[in-house]
Amino acid sequence: MPTLSRRGPGELAARAAALDAADELGKLRERFILPEGVVYLDGNSLGALPAGVAAATADVVNRQWGELLIRSWDESGWWTAPERIGDKIAPLIGAAPGQVTVGDSTSVNLFKVLVGAARLAGTDPARTRLLVDASTFPTDGYIAASAARMTGLTVVPVEPARAAAEIGTDTAVVLLNHVDYRTGRLHDLPALTAAARAAGAVIVWDLCHSAGALPVGLDENAVDLAVGCTYKYLNGGPGSPAYLYIAERHQAAFDSPLPGWNGHADPFAMTPEYLPAAGAARARVGTPDILSMLALESALDAWDGVSVEAVRAKSLALTDFFLECVAAYVPTGTVESVTPDEHARRGSQVSLRTENARAVMAELIVRGVIGDFRAPDVLRFGFTPLYVSFTDAERASRTLGHIFG
Amino acid sequence: MPTLSRRGPGELAARAAALDAADELGKLRERFILPEGVVYLDGNSLGALPAGVAAATADVVNRQWGELLIRSWDESGWWTAPERIGDKIAPLIGAAPGQVTVGDSTSVNLFKVLVGAARLAGTDPARTRLLVDASTFPTDGYIAASAARMTGLTVVPVEPARAAAEIGTDTAVVLLNHVDYRTGRLHDLPALTAAARAAGAVIVWDLCHSAGALPVGLDENAVDLAVGCTYKYLNGGPGSPAYLYIAERHQAAFDSPLPGWNGHADPFAMTPEYLPAAGAARARVGTPDILSMLALESALDAWDGVSVEAVRAKSLALTDFFLECVAAYVPTGTVESVTPDEHARRGSQVSLRTENARAVMAELIVRGVIGDFRAPDVLRFGFTPLYVSFTDAERASRTLGHIFG
Repeated sequence: MPTLSRRGPGELAARAAALDAADELGKLRERFILPEGVVYLDGNSLGALPAGVAAATADVVNRQWGELLIRSWDESGWWTAPERIGDKIAPLIGAAPGQVTVGDSTSVNLFKVLVGAARLAGTDPARTRLLVDASTFPTDGYIAASAARMTGLTVVPVEPARAAAEIGTDTAVVLLNHVDYRTGRLHDLPALTAAARAAGAVIVWDLCHSAGALPVGLDENAVDLAVGCTYKYLNGGPGSPAYLYIAERHQAAFDSPLPGWNGHADPFAMTPEYLPAAGAARARVGTPDILSMLALESALDAWDGVSVEAVRAKSLALTDFFLECVAAYVPTGTVESVTPDEHARRGSQVSLRTENARAVMAELIVRGVIGDFRAPDVLRFGFTPLYVSFTDAERASRTLGHIFG
Repeated sequence: MPTLSRRGPGELAARAAALDAADELGKLRERFILPEGVVYLDGNSLGALPAGVAAATADVVNRQWGELLIRSWDESGWWTAPERIGDKIAPLIGAAPGQVTVGDSTSVNLFKVLVGAARLAGTDPARTRLLVDASTFPTDGYIAASAARMTGLTVVPVEPARAAAEIGTDTAVVLLNHVDYRTGRLHDLPALTAAARAAGAVIVWDLCHSAGALPVGLDENAVDLAVGCTYKYLNGGPGSPAYLYIAERHQAAFDSPLPGWNGHADPFAMTPEYLPAAGAARARVGTPDILSMLALESALDAWDGVSVEAVRAKSLALTDFFLECVAAYVPTGTVESVTPDEHARRGSQVSLRTENARAVMAELIVRGVIGDFRAPDVLRFGFTPLYVSFTDAERASRTLGHIFG
């Protein structure tokens, strides 16, 4: 973190107010219900409640389920929701329509795409390695180990920063996180995707900590496969269904290890033989969880008319300003940022390493600033540009300073 | 179907009213919201809306998510919901606590238990067969084929009625449906489970069409593994999460192919090594879909104080009476029941084969009687004893008679 002169709260609070007044995205906060008096910097774990979700969910329960009952599978569009909502997420991750389907958890989707990737990579006996981000969110590593075990590959941990050099003709599949969940480091998706392509490997990106916070550019960078959750920057609600992207060029050959009846070309024919559906829908498995699914659909309305580029610009301004405020308010040497300063390497969070991080975060929460703790020593602050203000950033850092003061 | 003398609507309607008046479960209908004027006989596809779900869901959205935000993972019991709700389902399927976890779809759970079963069955090279119910709901067959492909087994279709003789020392795993989705035939779970045990095979039961309609007796019959959905007779809502049962004796060795972080012994330690949780929780995968999950938890309150044995007695009385009414109202030779007459072989539905079944069901629905159609020629009528009355059964059959009359 840059060492800056300590400045008084008056000056930074005034700066925050001016930045908020000039913020074109500031009015989007009205699209969310946020508790009074709380600074919410944990939208990278569970996004806040979009304003329309309560009414949408009540309609799903009372009218669609309670009154229309079974007819809603057609009449309320339940059956087609996974692809319809996939197409609503697609522009946020730089995907043309028809390549994203929604459903299941991120972990389950990871299993589908990793086994699918191994099968796409083919049967070249020299391609034995599944490279996995060494600092990955744990579930990716656990699922990769299972996928490798069941497809005959060997997992090789790799530091994303050095991954380009590690990807070779012995590599079948590469699994990387776009943004590291602990440090907030943003990895170079274009360069790493190009390196995988050059080596003939299939690349899978986990977008959990980037989608909705910064441009992803899946199509533009010719990514092969991707997964992500929807309950962080997409604000879909607790455990809302995840999504999965299959580039159009891979769809016809995508061979899912979870060929459930919802992914069949003609599910109600109920034939004993499995014939996969066209498009990304072949990655569907069982009956989708409609309540969670349609809450997500409503939540995505918060993105109407919002450009991801504008969100990215505000995200960087917010995290820059937060770092500046932390430098001003928090005694030197008590916290250390593990999030890169360089914009090109920074996601939408700031992670501060400190002693007693768990207790410090508990105290912040008591004082109305909600971030989270990640073992062993990280205070994590997520900045969701749709509803976090510069005033929030100033108050959060000032409160942190008081705890250390 | 037994041929009975044609009787007039007056007599059967009076019988229905008398049966309803004497029905001790009749008052349970108040626990559900049902549209006026509709006879709902599709609870074996999507159960009706329990009365408390709308308020429970609104609380989850507005207070638990909107106000408490991330804190609800602990404070609102989100994290422990899969096991808590599993223990609420357990008595309905004859399972002691600690053996059922809720989450994911039935198809995903089938993959977990089939691969888990293959691993439990061990490495005896002579055990190469995965026997699968030849008339199974399709997803079971599709998922079994994938599980077999990934574990080196060979799928062998088997008629459940002849399965006992087919299970041998070459059998690793057996997958059967407790009640056939199309015909409503109830298979002999105690005898088939005993046959599998005698042969040293691992048995998996799919309870989708039996749980909540009749006693299952998993523990009593020493079943190994089971799965089921919650949106049919358990009324959990569209696509509500499925459940999975692992008999206590198998839990320590159960080795899931989907080892997501939620199934880890210490998920927030975020260690690179996977260490499975104790108990059925090791079958958890990713973050559970809380809105759907907690709607299900509320829906299960409809079972408070209800015995499955009483439900079974009413179910048989309802289907008996419906068959009697059909014989009386519907011209001889136009429909044929494919559901067994024998109580010991009948689930909680009646399936009538007829010409133009799709069009006949569409006309029934127009007239306010909702069942469903299953290809190629089956009218399916499900009887949920918690909210279906004898008067409903009489009206449904009378309406069917009018269509053919």
